[in-house]
Amino acid sequence: MTANSGRHFLQIPGPTNVPDRVLRAISAPTIDHRGPDFAELALDVLQRVKPVFGTSGPVVIYPSSGTGAWEAALVNTLSPGDRVLAFETGHFATLWRDMAEGLGLVVDFVPGDWRRGVDPAVVAERLAADEQHSIAAVMVVHNETSTGVVSRVPEIRAAIDEADHPALLLVDTISSLASIDYRHDEWGVDVTVSCSQKGLMLPPGLGFNAISEKALAAAAGSRLPKSYWDWAPILEANELGSYPYTPPTNLLYGLREALALLEGEGLPNVFARHTRHAEATRAAVRGWGLEVLCADEREYSSSLTAVLLGDEHDANKVRQIILDRFDMSLGTGLGKLAGRVFRIGHLGDFNDLTLAGTLAGVQMGLELAGVPIDPTGTQAALEVLRA
Amino acid sequence: MTANSGRHFLQIPGPTNVPDRVLRAISAPTIDHRGPDFAELALDVLQRVKPVFGTSGPVVIYPSSGTGAWEAALVNTLSPGDRVLAFETGHFATLWRDMAEGLGLVVDFVPGDWRRGVDPAVVAERLAADEQHSIAAVMVVHNETSTGVVSRVPEIRAAIDEADHPALLLVDTISSLASIDYRHDEWGVDVTVSCSQKGLMLPPGLGFNAISEKALAAAAGSRLPKSYWDWAPILEANELGSYPYTPPTNLLYGLREALALLEGEGLPNVFARHTRHAEATRAAVRGWGLEVLCADEREYSSSLTAVLLGDEHDANKVRQIILDRFDMSLGTGLGKLAGRVFRIGHLGDFNDLTLAGTLAGVQMGLELAGVPIDPTGTQAALEVLRA
Repeated sequence: MTANSGRHFLQIPGPTNVPDRVLRAISAPTIDHRGPDFAELALDVLQRVKPVFGTSGPVVIYPSSGTGAWEAALVNTLSPGDRVLAFETGHFATLWRDMAEGLGLVVDFVPGDWRRGVDPAVVAERLAADEQHSIAAVMVVHNETSTGVVSRVPEIRAAIDEADHPALLLVDTISSLASIDYRHDEWGVDVTVSCSQKGLMLPPGLGFNAISEKALAAAAGSRLPKSYWDWAPILEANELGSYPYTPPTNLLYGLREALALLEGEGLPNVFARHTRHAEATRAAVRGWGLEVLCADEREYSSSLTAVLLGDEHDANKVRQIILDRFDMSLGTGLGKLAGRVFRIGHLGDFNDLTLAGTLAGVQMGLELAGVPIDPTGTQAALEVLRA
Repeated sequence: MTANSGRHFLQIPGPTNVPDRVLRAISAPTIDHRGPDFAELALDVLQRVKPVFGTSGPVVIYPSSGTGAWEAALVNTLSPGDRVLAFETGHFATLWRDMAEGLGLVVDFVPGDWRRGVDPAVVAERLAADEQHSIAAVMVVHNETSTGVVSRVPEIRAAIDEADHPALLLVDTISSLASIDYRHDEWGVDVTVSCSQKGLMLPPGLGFNAISEKALAAAAGSRLPKSYWDWAPILEANELGSYPYTPPTNLLYGLREALALLEGEGLPNVFARHTRHAEATRAAVRGWGLEVLCADEREYSSSLTAVLLGDEHDANKVRQIILDRFDMSLGTGLGKLAGRVFRIGHLGDFNDLTLAGTLAGVQMGLELAGVPIDPTGTQAALEVLRA
């Protein structure tokens, strides 16, 4: 790693800073995954993770990245040639579309400008036009990690209901879970996809699917080939705290610790903390005289803020200076945003003074890169934090 | 975990005991997977893992269990309806068969008695009879973890060559890699499947595919749907030390440490150590008057020993007594061996005195369970160790 003194500032929008007690937990000796201690661990975390998704139904945990959990949501519920409705909200929505096509699904992909979330009116319109009910699922990225824009899932749900359409609702919460208010059951989501390395404050390596009863029913008729991702044997084994294949024991130790941290703070407080840090960050961006990429204030992200630079400045040069001088990692611009934005992650294990340091580093880096800014930006953020 | 004092004896045939320095390595803070430090880590471990497989070709590392690496080997090389030849050498060979069928392949499954490995003569015979070359791949489990029997891969390779058959050779080394001599390139294996939690001495969570040029060529024409497991984008990203999706950073820290341990000891010494511990274990079993499950001395496993009990004794009762009294986990009998065998893992981070403790615990447990044995068994093992 770097030879700099002090702690690295990992302010990409995930993987996030892992709390010391979670790191210590994952370094405990590995145990027999068929023994009684493992079963107790598995039954415990499989139960306690449910409130984080806002569900009383089953949550499957895979040894995988979040990308694996995307694939699991598709192959468990759909069949070759099924039509799905998806929205170009950013880089990750586009990658999920690519995956769906690669697996043999037919994707209606609604274009977008990467500055707005899914428009519920378009959902309503597309589903109303689908009189044959040939659309099997609607795929939504809740918080688009590449843009810092949150799609309004309750309004999307309402649009589906208004059209009286039976499509499944599949939602990616990779960078919103345990950071932004989310309610799998209340919002009628059928599969919620997530991962370990963002709001759950763990290293990468766990993928999640929260599953509705409707999704379970769809799984029974799904014909996409599946084995590793197949919910059925996992749900059956999980009943007894076991797995059909070797589970990721040490990350599950970490999950138990992370759940204890979230329970201790309380989810509403966790969400409020993220909201406040996002407000302070936007105050800094505006104070600097720069533009937040998200174009609709109803869709601001509490997990990250993407900052748009003018064409005359290279966002990656700014990031490189900040990494070299201040040992802080920021998120790069992905896909068509490459070089035009940088992203500040303010999610996970995070507090006021870490945010103050983060914004100070961004401010000094912008100045060193020759981007003309108003240096009162960081002060504007502190006023939000002090309030 | 258990409240007992001292260290737990984790003598299942994997997950194995993880060395302290590997546990400490995985508890280092997670870093930016798109930053320079991560690229250096990835390029380093992707290169240094190759000698462990005996290959100079690419090795793909997945965030997954070994079961995921099984699926990757199949979906990257084969197409729906392809015929594959597989062998009932035990529980895991049977599960791999089930997976292949579930993914839409047609499996010729050669029955077996779970006490012997793949018979090279049968490979020769089956392939010679396949004049149309309709068999696309031969699937072999190198060390069958459920039985402690090693299939002779070089002789299987010779049988394929003798039949002048173009089938791919896919080999599972889940419980043999870095424990039993294995040579991907020299033996002409096309895909070698493995995982982190056995000879590599890591927690579960990494899956591996070592890939031959012939397998890469087959991948170009393979039509099984794939996305997460697709080699192509991973190999492309790996060139620069990156990944197409979030990599399992902390387990890769551990892998770097584990590779340093293996390099320090030297692979020939690692294999010799495992061979010697296996010999000592078999001396103990025979000394007790019990039977080793493996029926052919050319196929003895250096990773584990499965011990067969007569019908009048329940192997799981013996295991339970040993867990309760001596805080040691042994492997259970899987599938049709349930209750009839227990398995002693002697692979990974292991030494003479840990083996002595392990065998002492087995001996005392057998006596406490009322299994009539000759108590000189452990002494017979010590004579092997002392020699």
